[in-house]
Amino acid sequence: MTLLDGSLRAVAAGAPLFADTLTSQGVPVQPVDWTPPANGDAELAAQLGSLWTSDIDRANAQALQHVLDARQVLVDVRPAGEVIPGLERDMILHAGPPIDWSRMTAPIRAAAVGAMLHEGLAASEQEAETMAARGDVRFEPCHEHQTVGPMAGMTTYSMPVLVVENRTDGNRAYSILNEGLGRVLRYGGLGPDVLERLDWMRRVLGPAMGAALRSVPEGVDLRSLIAQALHMGDECHNRNRAASSLLIKALAGAIAALDSLDAVERRRVLEFAAGNEHFFLNVGMAACKAAMDAADGVPGSSLVTAMARNGTEFGIRVSGLGDRWFTGPSQVPRGLYFAGHSAEDASPDMGDSAITETAGLGGFAMAAAPAIVQFVGGTVTDAIGHTRRMYEITLGESQAYSLPILDFRGTPTGVDVRLVVQTGILPQINTGIASRRAGIGQIGAGLVNPPMACFSSAVQALAQR
Amino acid sequence: MTLLDGSLRAVAAGAPLFADTLTSQGVPVQPVDWTPPANGDAELAAQLGSLWTSDIDRANAQALQHVLDARQVLVDVRPAGEVIPGLERDMILHAGPPIDWSRMTAPIRAAAVGAMLHEGLAASEQEAETMAARGDVRFEPCHEHQTVGPMAGMTTYSMPVLVVENRTDGNRAYSILNEGLGRVLRYGGLGPDVLERLDWMRRVLGPAMGAALRSVPEGVDLRSLIAQALHMGDECHNRNRAASSLLIKALAGAIAALDSLDAVERRRVLEFAAGNEHFFLNVGMAACKAAMDAADGVPGSSLVTAMARNGTEFGIRVSGLGDRWFTGPSQVPRGLYFAGHSAEDASPDMGDSAITETAGLGGFAMAAAPAIVQFVGGTVTDAIGHTRRMYEITLGESQAYSLPILDFRGTPTGVDVRLVVQTGILPQINTGIASRRAGIGQIGAGLVNPPMACFSSAVQALAQR
Repeated sequence: MTLLDGSLRAVAAGAPLFADTLTSQGVPVQPVDWTPPANGDAELAAQLGSLWTSDIDRANAQALQHVLDARQVLVDVRPAGEVIPGLERDMILHAGPPIDWSRMTAPIRAAAVGAMLHEGLAASEQEAETMAARGDVRFEPCHEHQTVGPMAGMTTYSMPVLVVENRTDGNRAYSILNEGLGRVLRYGGLGPDVLERLDWMRRVLGPAMGAALRSVPEGVDLRSLIAQALHMGDECHNRNRAASSLLIKALAGAIAALDSLDAVERRRVLEFAAGNEHFFLNVGMAACKAAMDAADGVPGSSLVTAMARNGTEFGIRVSGLGDRWFTGPSQVPRGLYFAGHSAEDASPDMGDSAITETAGLGGFAMAAAPAIVQFVGGTVTDAIGHTRRMYEITLGESQAYSLPILDFRGTPTGVDVRLVVQTGILPQINTGIASRRAGIGQIGAGLVNPPMACFSSAVQALAQR
Repeated sequence: MTLLDGSLRAVAAGAPLFADTLTSQGVPVQPVDWTPPANGDAELAAQLGSLWTSDIDRANAQALQHVLDARQVLVDVRPAGEVIPGLERDMILHAGPPIDWSRMTAPIRAAAVGAMLHEGLAASEQEAETMAARGDVRFEPCHEHQTVGPMAGMTTYSMPVLVVENRTDGNRAYSILNEGLGRVLRYGGLGPDVLERLDWMRRVLGPAMGAALRSVPEGVDLRSLIAQALHMGDECHNRNRAASSLLIKALAGAIAALDSLDAVERRRVLEFAAGNEHFFLNVGMAACKAAMDAADGVPGSSLVTAMARNGTEFGIRVSGLGDRWFTGPSQVPRGLYFAGHSAEDASPDMGDSAITETAGLGGFAMAAAPAIVQFVGGTVTDAIGHTRRMYEITLGESQAYSLPILDFRGTPTGVDVRLVVQTGILPQINTGIASRRAGIGQIGAGLVNPPMACFSSAVQALAQR
């Protein structure tokens, strides 16, 4: 602490107690944003210290290269059961780290019930709840099946899923189709309208998109589409207006030419897509999953390959730490609420959509999307600041995705758990906000961070290897 | 002139002779961007001085309000002869101020010849040239027929034109459909491919878009679409990627449902639109024309209602000065050239597309479009600077079109000829660059300004009223 001038103005770094004491005595204090490594935890700091090795740096460079080199192409839409590895008829894939029925929040349970009704696994909400509580259905994370799902993320056997191929590494990733906004299953919305829409998506929308994609020989180049969208004000998590338009533009001709649909359904398919500014979200998520799965399993690497939430816990996975999840309690986002709602109505954060931040988009690319502040709150300067801060915890910069306003610098890509614990800077995530009550749906949008516990326990696990 | 410190560093404002003399003597000089009003022309300065009246301010406020209040809706596509007032079968509408055949440049002549062949007014290029030189066809400015056309702007009787309605003032504006890039009529491209495309546009594309638009009860709200596009990285003159995607999104469902087209043509229509990032340009131009025509004819107003080029001259029209054109020589743009081309190949500036700048878009909205610098040259800082400078010569700020990176400030709107002459700041225009040879087409894109003569002669005319 230093006295700066005659006005006794002080600079306070570290523990806030000092600053608070001075402030209470009427002394002007200038706080600076400095946190000791590992937030002053000596044991964790020692463990972290043991991880700054050239072996880990090399492993990280190798893992990162897989992310940067990914060339994702949207090639098909298929029933989940035909394509998702290990998916069975009695299985429900959900967002985030593993969770059983007893620990699920109300909106997650509502979405699970809706998924069971949609799949014909239960005939009523009551029966579905009983079956789920009894263990008649198996809940497994999407992430463990090359799949990602936004919000509740419920993915079942007959649902149509997007098929994204990573042409560099040959792996595939999957995601359900986006239902639109308002009362929808992924936000825990439940009711006949929700189920009718899901049924139409299974009967008409999914097959139509699949047929259209199979008629486009090269598929849709998602690396290029996302790069364009970032020059068009999207960050591809909470703002997908440009990417959705570009996807519709890429597929409209093929859908208009489908023999399998009559004029009314051709129009409905395209108007459904056009009516949803997040139509692209799930496509982008699958693209990000295809990049991050390619970076998985590099021994020693401290690169984060997944960040995901199940409504109760936030979990991360790390390239060099196998299939383990490192978890902490899920936080309630800070943001803007739709009319009639407030933070008191908000569910803790949920969904696999933080795969976008994991791959250097979303909150990491907010500088691409200044207009998003009208949706999530804050100022344009804040949005640019979020991106700048993320360079401090990432291993590299995208070669595909650039930020015009930062003179075309690549987006910060590849979170290093070491850098998060070292700097105390948490990944910045943009997110939708669900009601904490069942059956309601989205009530706002905002910003959220993972708990530090995810990263410190990953650092411990790396140190103990 | 002031000596600043021991290094004899000088600040030089005004006539460059002083600075040049000092520089030649090895004295470091800091030029500042200051120009005396009317560039030191005492008579013009006196005339300008007589125009700072409350009557003119009131007239300008009234004219500007028409621009700001315009609510433009795309409602139809129709054959030009059915809708454009005063258009006759032997008439060719062109971009820019009036010009006859003898003064047209090679690309403008090539486009006129192509238009005559397309319209069946001549059977060969030779015959068309002879007829045009003999006065068998009448050349009139698009602008004098509620119409705007990009580059050469050739508009003839049977061509399909966009119909844009200004719901506030009830006036309409028209523009041909955009042909795409490469060798196209508007850039003076000529050949069987150009004529075949124009024929298909007349037979298939125009009627399809018309039928689709008539099936959308409310039409396409262009005020809202342009506002969105400005939050998506477009400035809607030289960058229309977002606006084009949004327009396709708005129409795809209706086009997919057309009974009048078979599957192959439905696909071709949508893929033609999707393959052209400037598909929206002509739509936006008609929207701007509909706003600016509403501001025309306010007695005393010094607001610019048109800026347009015919390849030889740049001309402006002013709200309070009737149908007169104030002209000066058209300039060659500064910009980036496609491979194999250079400034030596460039035609002087052409087209009605500067109607976008006249309405506060294009170069005036470059701060919305940082990525455009990859296409027109310069840096992101330059792009933002162009917009900031335009606030100095405009009467107001848009209430519909805002710039996220300037904290959502409205675009600078409504050029005042007084402010241009007072400050010496010329309107900043983004533009495509045509080859100066016939038959070639676009060779680059860049920035250009009108000649000051347009504005000083308008100031003189206002003073002499």
